Amino acid sequence: MAVLYLSEAKRGAVFQAAFAQELPDLPFHIATAPDPAAVEYMVTWTAPTDLSQWPNLRLIFSVGAGIDQFDLAALPPHVGVVRMQEPGIMRQMQEMAVMSTLALHRDLPVYLDQGRKGVWRARQNRSTADCRVGVMGLGRLGQAVLQALRPFGFRLAGWSRSPKDLAGIDVFTDLDRFLAQTDILICLLPLTRQTRDILNDDLFDLLPRDARLVHLGRGAQLNMQALQRALDRGLASAFLDVTDPEPLPPDHWAWAHPRVIITPHVASQTDAGMGATHVIAGIRADRAGAEIPGLIDRARGY
Amino acid sequence: MAVLYLSEAKRGAVFQAAFAQELPDLPFHIATAPDPAAVEYMVTWTAPTDLSQWPNLRLIFSVGAGIDQFDLAALPPHVGVVRMQEPGIMRQMQEMAVMSTLALHRDLPVYLDQGRKGVWRARQNRSTADCRVGVMGLGRLGQAVLQALRPFGFRLAGWSRSPKDLAGIDVFTDLDRFLAQTDILICLLPLTRQTRDILNDDLFDLLPRDARLVHLGRGAQLNMQALQRALDRGLASAFLDVTDPEPLPPDHWAWAHPRVIITPHVASQTDAGMGATHVIAGIRADRAGAEIPGLIDRARGY
Repeated sequence: MAVLYLSEAKRGAVFQAAFAQELPDLPFHIATAPDPAAVEYMVTWTAPTDLSQWPNLRLIFSVGAGIDQFDLAALPPHVGVVRMQEPGIMRQMQEMAVMSTLALHRDLPVYLDQGRKGVWRARQNRSTADCRVGVMGLGRLGQAVLQALRPFGFRLAGWSRSPKDLAGIDVFTDLDRFLAQTDILICLLPLTRQTRDILNDDLFDLLPRDARLVHLGRGAQLNMQALQRALDRGLASAFLDVTDPEPLPPDHWAWAHPRVIITPHVASQTDAGMGATHVIAGIRADRAGAEIPGLIDRARGY
Repeated sequence: MAVLYLSEAKRGAVFQAAFAQELPDLPFHIATAPDPAAVEYMVTWTAPTDLSQWPNLRLIFSVGAGIDQFDLAALPPHVGVVRMQEPGIMRQMQEMAVMSTLALHRDLPVYLDQGRKGVWRARQNRSTADCRVGVMGLGRLGQAVLQALRPFGFRLAGWSRSPKDLAGIDVFTDLDRFLAQTDILICLLPLTRQTRDILNDDLFDLLPRDARLVHLGRGAQLNMQALQRALDRGLASAFLDVTDPEPLPPDHWAWAHPRVIITPHVASQTDAGMGATHVIAGIRADRAGAEIPGLIDRARGY
């Protein structure tokens, strides 16, 4: 029985130290394992194309919150995939979502643009009570973001494929109706076949005039050309932490757009120490035959 | 007995309607009063130079949160001064403080600067648990801001001339010690003789390297040249909602500084309807001989 770690070296050292402390009997290998047949657990960002060299692999742990970097259909069916669920990811996402939502609500893009021209001109503040914030994706992150936004008095809603009962949140399963009543749209969806390109012309057309977009999901969910058209047709502003492609090329129109703020996919970064704790808990659960925190439903894709 | 309103016309109409509803027996005059001797209450942003034409004036109500626009020494000693305390001011200040504090904590100025150059480069996120936020000014607004920041896990402190007992907040009366342990400094002080130019070279020198400034107080508290020197010597960034002077001239260095974000004094705007409610409550309290909400201590100056 052994663990094979295939990600960044600096983070690997933190994992190695945590494993030595917590699971000293379990060999922890970085980059390569002397006995491939012993490898039951893999910690990685992307899965190697050919997994047959580790015939006894049981679980692949992602070092990041997403698992969309894996080609689930290509993985052997008996291998489980576990997403990263360290609490820091959730807290950082709350920070980023609150910051970007308030920034768009309080017209920061307008003031930044005025600032570039040396223009001092105040706009009328609007009340959060008149602003409907809608979150696409009501998993752990989406619910955490709604909770963090609650004290500010926004009208909160969410969209989810399956009905959910969340106190104080209008939960929609009908996407069109959800969009029609959303002034600030926050995308926190996982990337799946269904959510690829979901932020497209049709979606933007359904938002009210002067709506705003906060995109904290995955770049491939956003059709950048549709965003550009929407900005021309009445979308007020956009805060993008993810783009298509990533990195965004230096000459891309979005960098220079006066109503777009871009951050380079930094909403959440896994803390190595807390990440190791999560993986160790998952391995312990697997060995005890218990439920593995973060194990995804491969059929559903998240 | 009468009220004289001397501020903006649009807001005046809202006040007039509210007074007609709530205090129909009290004459409410806009711009000029037919019988100056009847005027006991004045609603205004700035005080007229010569108040002797209203010999029976009892209270001046400010239409904004500040009262520093009045020359308190020049007002007749028997006239009370009341600051605006409608709840919207506090909520807007919380929004602005949380947005700007998170923006500086999450390196938004760096990303905006990179964005201007089309550069996609992620920095390492830091934990809020390692970030010490310090609020100067622990009145109603300062306390409200600390409360709004609490869920994000920052280490919170405050500076106040008089000792205060606030749960979970390190309260300092020693300014030097407070500054030495502050990573993000939020200025929410009222403008008085003592706080004018308080954000100066000496103060910036006492902050740790890589500290950040959120200025939501008054422009005249900030020495802009000292800020420029501080940015050269290790201050990481600044978010200014108030500047000296206001409006900031188009060619001022601060507009173009890559680590400064400027908004044009928009942190809080009084809602006319809620403002009228506050003034009406103050007049009712005065007529009942009760404590007047927002009445300032003229000796202290706030």
